[in-house]
Amino acid sequence: MLLYLKEEASESDVNNLMERLKWMGLVAKSSGHMGAYTVAILEGIDKNVDRDAFSTLPMVKEVRELKHAFKLASKTAPDHKSQVRIKDVAIGSDTIAIMAGPCSIESKDQMDTVAAYLAEKKVQILRGGAYKPRTSPYSFQGLGEEGMKFMKEAADKYNLVTISEVMEPDQIPLLSEYVDILQVGTRNMQNFSLLKHLGKIKNPIFLKRGLSATYQDFLMSAEYILGHGNPNVILCERGIRTYETHTRNTLDIAAVPILQELSHLPVIVDPSHAAGIRKMVRPLSKAAVAAGADGLMIEMHPNPDEAFSDKDQTIDFDEFAKVIKELKPIAKAVGKTVL
Amino acid sequence: MLLYLKEEASESDVNNLMERLKWMGLVAKSSGHMGAYTVAILEGIDKNVDRDAFSTLPMVKEVRELKHAFKLASKTAPDHKSQVRIKDVAIGSDTIAIMAGPCSIESKDQMDTVAAYLAEKKVQILRGGAYKPRTSPYSFQGLGEEGMKFMKEAADKYNLVTISEVMEPDQIPLLSEYVDILQVGTRNMQNFSLLKHLGKIKNPIFLKRGLSATYQDFLMSAEYILGHGNPNVILCERGIRTYETHTRNTLDIAAVPILQELSHLPVIVDPSHAAGIRKMVRPLSKAAVAAGADGLMIEMHPNPDEAFSDKDQTIDFDEFAKVIKELKPIAKAVGKTVL
Amino acid sequence: MLLYLKEEASESDVNNLMERLKWMGLVAKSSGHMGAYTVAILEGIDKNVDRDAFSTLPMVKEVRELKHAFKLASKTAPDHKSQVRIKDVAIGSDTIAIMAGPCSIESKDQMDTVAAYLAEKKVQILRGGAYKPRTSPYSFQGLGEEGMKFMKEAADKYNLVTISEVMEPDQIPLLSEYVDILQVGTRNMQNFSLLKHLGKIKNPIFLKRGLSATYQDFLMSAEYILGHGNPNVILCERGIRTYETHTRNTLDIAAVPILQELSHLPVIVDPSHAAGIRKMVRPLSKAAVAAGADGLMIEMHPNPDEAFSDKDQTIDFDEFAKVIKELKPIAKAVGKTVL
Amino acid sequence: MLLYLKEEASESDVNNLMERLKWMGLVAKSSGHMGAYTVAILEGIDKNVDRDAFSTLPMVKEVRELKHAFKLASKTAPDHKSQVRIKDVAIGSDTIAIMAGPCSIESKDQMDTVAAYLAEKKVQILRGGAYKPRTSPYSFQGLGEEGMKFMKEAADKYNLVTISEVMEPDQIPLLSEYVDILQVGTRNMQNFSLLKHLGKIKNPIFLKRGLSATYQDFLMSAEYILGHGNPNVILCERGIRTYETHTRNTLDIAAVPILQELSHLPVIVDPSHAAGIRKMVRPLSKAAVAAGADGLMIEMHPNPDEAFSDKDQTIDFDEFAKVIKELKPIAKAVGKTVL
Repeated sequence: MLLYLKEEASESDVNNLMERLKWMGLVAKSSGHMGAYTVAILEGIDKNVDRDAFSTLPMVKEVRELKHAFKLASKTAPDHKSQVRIKDVAIGSDTIAIMAGPCSIESKDQMDTVAAYLAEKKVQILRGGAYKPRTSPYSFQGLGEEGMKFMKEAADKYNLVTISEVMEPDQIPLLSEYVDILQVGTRNMQNFSLLKHLGKIKNPIFLKRGLSATYQDFLMSAEYILGHGNPNVILCERGIRTYETHTRNTLDIAAVPILQELSHLPVIVDPSHAAGIRKMVRPLSKAAVAAGADGLMIEMHPNPDEAFSDKDQTIDFDEFAKVIKELKPIAKAVGKTVL
Repeated sequence: MLLYLKEEASESDVNNLMERLKWMGLVAKSSGHMGAYTVAILEGIDKNVDRDAFSTLPMVKEVRELKHAFKLASKTAPDHKSQVRIKDVAIGSDTIAIMAGPCSIESKDQMDTVAAYLAEKKVQILRGGAYKPRTSPYSFQGLGEEGMKFMKEAADKYNLVTISEVMEPDQIPLLSEYVDILQVGTRNMQNFSLLKHLGKIKNPIFLKRGLSATYQDFLMSAEYILGHGNPNVILCERGIRTYETHTRNTLDIAAVPILQELSHLPVIVDPSHAAGIRKMVRPLSKAAVAAGADGLMIEMHPNPDEAFSDKDQTIDFDEFAKVIKELKPIAKAVGKTVL
Repeated sequence: MLLYLKEEASESDVNNLMERLKWMGLVAKSSGHMGAYTVAILEGIDKNVDRDAFSTLPMVKEVRELKHAFKLASKTAPDHKSQVRIKDVAIGSDTIAIMAGPCSIESKDQMDTVAAYLAEKKVQILRGGAYKPRTSPYSFQGLGEEGMKFMKEAADKYNLVTISEVMEPDQIPLLSEYVDILQVGTRNMQNFSLLKHLGKIKNPIFLKRGLSATYQDFLMSAEYILGHGNPNVILCERGIRTYETHTRNTLDIAAVPILQELSHLPVIVDPSHAAGIRKMVRPLSKAAVAAGADGLMIEMHPNPDEAFSDKDQTIDFDEFAKVIKELKPIAKAVGKTVL
Repeated sequence: MLLYLKEEASESDVNNLMERLKWMGLVAKSSGHMGAYTVAILEGIDKNVDRDAFSTLPMVKEVRELKHAFKLASKTAPDHKSQVRIKDVAIGSDTIAIMAGPCSIESKDQMDTVAAYLAEKKVQILRGGAYKPRTSPYSFQGLGEEGMKFMKEAADKYNLVTISEVMEPDQIPLLSEYVDILQVGTRNMQNFSLLKHLGKIKNPIFLKRGLSATYQDFLMSAEYILGHGNPNVILCERGIRTYETHTRNTLDIAAVPILQELSHLPVIVDPSHAAGIRKMVRPLSKAAVAAGADGLMIEMHPNPDEAFSDKDQTIDFDEFAKVIKELKPIAKAVGKTVL
């Protein structure tokens, strides 16, 4: 159930309404979008509740049934679109957000080289993994805190925003200190305990779609974070698992416009994991932006052949420059800019 | 095995070589691309054949093992790209080929209305089904020959190229008389008997990817047509079957650059069947062109809500105009034109 | 719409009713099951038809809405189960039907050896392909009519029922003369033209599930054959395409009880194609019978390593004997017999 | 790399060898199976290591390359099969292990009723969820510690072994005190942080296959637990995600014999989640046992229609009794017993 408030509603009106709903035994959440308030009732509406009563509550202009099980992630209006802001970056705006860097943080030098290159190219977001979810327990598991330090140092030097993966609740305090955006990996998309904990912090959460998650599953996982209090969620389509083995995964390009129709959250595409093939990063990046993606996450390394992980899909600086160059006219064609 | 001939090789040199290979018990096929001849040996290379002997044959410049099981569909050089030409349309060129029209041919009027609109918009290819592969035997099965007449009349009047689906060998003579391009539907992609028969005619064949066909399967089906003598094959990515149920299928956008890397055949995208949702035609069309597609096949109807079939994914004239309008800058961004 | 007739209804009552329905503009089909007649109305029920009128028609005892789009394939009662009979074999009975033999018919000797072995083991159905749907046009395509002759000779000598694949309508007359049961392969499950033609003959049709066909798709394809007049359809679950690559396909064992709940048609399992691994034939055969399958189709060859096709999944005589031996107690456990 | 030791090798020989390998910079793990020791070298074998040197080490009889990336989960001999023992239950033995109970623990009464029934039927393992991984944050999340108390009380009273799901590392201490077997749910199969923590306790771990996990992925996740020190891992096939929507998931029955061929770990089947349909529990249970499963996990509730979760797939006591009754002859047919 969604209550649209009258335009003249003030913050204190909203608070009064929230109190009243609580007294009615309901769990509700208010949000302000474009100067207008809405209140979503999340829990407690059972057969004893008279739905007509809601429209008589003070300051309520309109009452609408929420179509989807994901309530806070749902759009409340066709043009409802959230921006996630970190420092001077706004994800979900007319500027395509580019996140780039290696799969694994490997050394201080590596981070510095990558950060310097990104800064030179005016790319604002540096990615790199300190904790790596590897299929094999015997593969490189990441540098941990040391890696985060390398990343933070480089980011501070070149004034970049950072993103890195979190794998368990206990890593949250440390990671949220070193890193701006916390990433939830594909394999943890339905690690509901982790999601709940991430709902209690303020850092933006970059949520990757599970290997075989439906749009509904994906948005329900976003809802876990939103419902526990963190409004800063960014969705990432990174390819799903299908029968096709030529590519590592199958990029579901339709996820971009569909998620944007179902939800107000920004949608990023990861063309590196989607195909698992270096050569595919360029065409898939262009397709993503043409389909309306709010940004891209790209694996890039000074020397991909020597990367500790994901080398088959990681591009070098030259190829990255070509990606950006070819993206520019595409972004322009859809009324946006890149960098 | 692929033999690259010397530049000075003449047609009669090629014929001599072909005779010689035949005499050696091999099945081979020659083709000329960009002024240079290549000869693909398709069958007969077993352990008794001395592979080194090939390089000593007259006019042979270079011998290369063919990497893939699909031989005629394979590229012989990185820039190897075929164009399929019908009347003054060249599919696989720098002009995005647009094919549009209703799922089913319904009446003379309907065909005339659609053809007139396409002509006005300078769209050159009219689609429409006379034989419909319906999941239910009790659903509308198409108007048959009468439908083809309606289509041909409209196409002749407005100078359009036509495309329509063939479902069995016995329909080929009639269809190839009325229709320019013969379409093989998704469910018949591995109807090898049909493919063999289509290899014996000259009309271009529009081959749709099967619901769960790999790239290899898809190109092997193209190989059936090529190997039986018809060089005019157009590939169509139209979405694959996955676990996601929000969309009718999942558009595999990576199929575009990957098929273009594996094969010289043109690649068209069908955004209508891919998602099965009208609203998705526009963003998916843009993504397809950005990813490098050689064209689009779009289901369009004067009044989609009353279409005999596929109405949920069929767009009206207004939406079609918007698709074309938004495609133009995308096409330009990748160095091509639309219409 | 399904009309259940009174027990006293005679064949001429049924004919009168059918005439009446025809006169009402409806397409209907009658069938007798367990001494009681039912009439299914397949087409023509639109908003102008008064559904209540059906119950007032003579001899009509009860009127029920048909739940599924597949009408003739649907069960009309919980215990409704069809048997398909050929010579003295009844598929769908308490005797597990075993069909065995090589993927491809290779020679007169091979067929004789296999048939002799089957006869000795009291297996009644001999399989072998004369027309092979091969992914590559350059692979062995089958011996054609010569192969069918080899098979028929061997079958006649040892008194076996035969089954072989049909790939196109033009092969039907010849095949239905040489072979008892005609098989529709996985890749042709939605070759609706072929299905329609098979609806016009009397030989039992063995319909294999498509690589990514839903139960609904599968039963709709059976409906094509039934709806065009051939009541003898046998369903075959042979594995579906999933992301798992260790096996050739994934055997959907639940298909057995679910298809038997939705439909009255017999359900056979093909453990050879399902996994594509010789060692898996035994456990999967046992699972199939335990789940209620009406029979098994097994690829067997005197010397699997030299088979022209499918050698990785083809078992030899020794392994076949073990399969049968281990199946016997399982069959007994579910109240059936093997051989 | 796997070192098979001579039969006369004593425990102290093994310890000496382990020291030596450690000194060589290698990570190794020893295990005793059927009175013979093997040592698996997990990490550190790079190009500088002379593989021939291993065979000259004291007490080493044979050196074999490990075929799979999962090393500790791999079989070391064709008849290598582990039993996981808890109290007087041995999972992986000739007695089919039956685990039954409700999806969610709901009340003290419910647990008592279920436990009493199980004890009467001689079923030894009681399941029930105290922490529920629900797709929606607004669904019932489980009773937590209170629920575990209800379960433990009932289990103690009727002398049952218990199994319950763990969702995050912080729950491990409490759960491992109240519950015998800890379950890792489908959505956490690749929650590598959780797996590492579970490698450090001694309770048996019941690992459910991920929604789209390959056999390799699944065994690598088992390897995480084994590699961190806990040898008591039980695998559970519970259906994978496919395009078929009639069932909740698709039971991959071939997983049973294949996992048993690749690994020595016991394999259990969950027919409740596999299909998501009550009626399918019986045939799928029989198929699982016929295919060689070491046990079954079945959702059962005194009154399924009022279950807090999973009611569509939960059976009642009557149906459970029928499952057990029909399983008995199947178990006997494969040389095992049920209860």
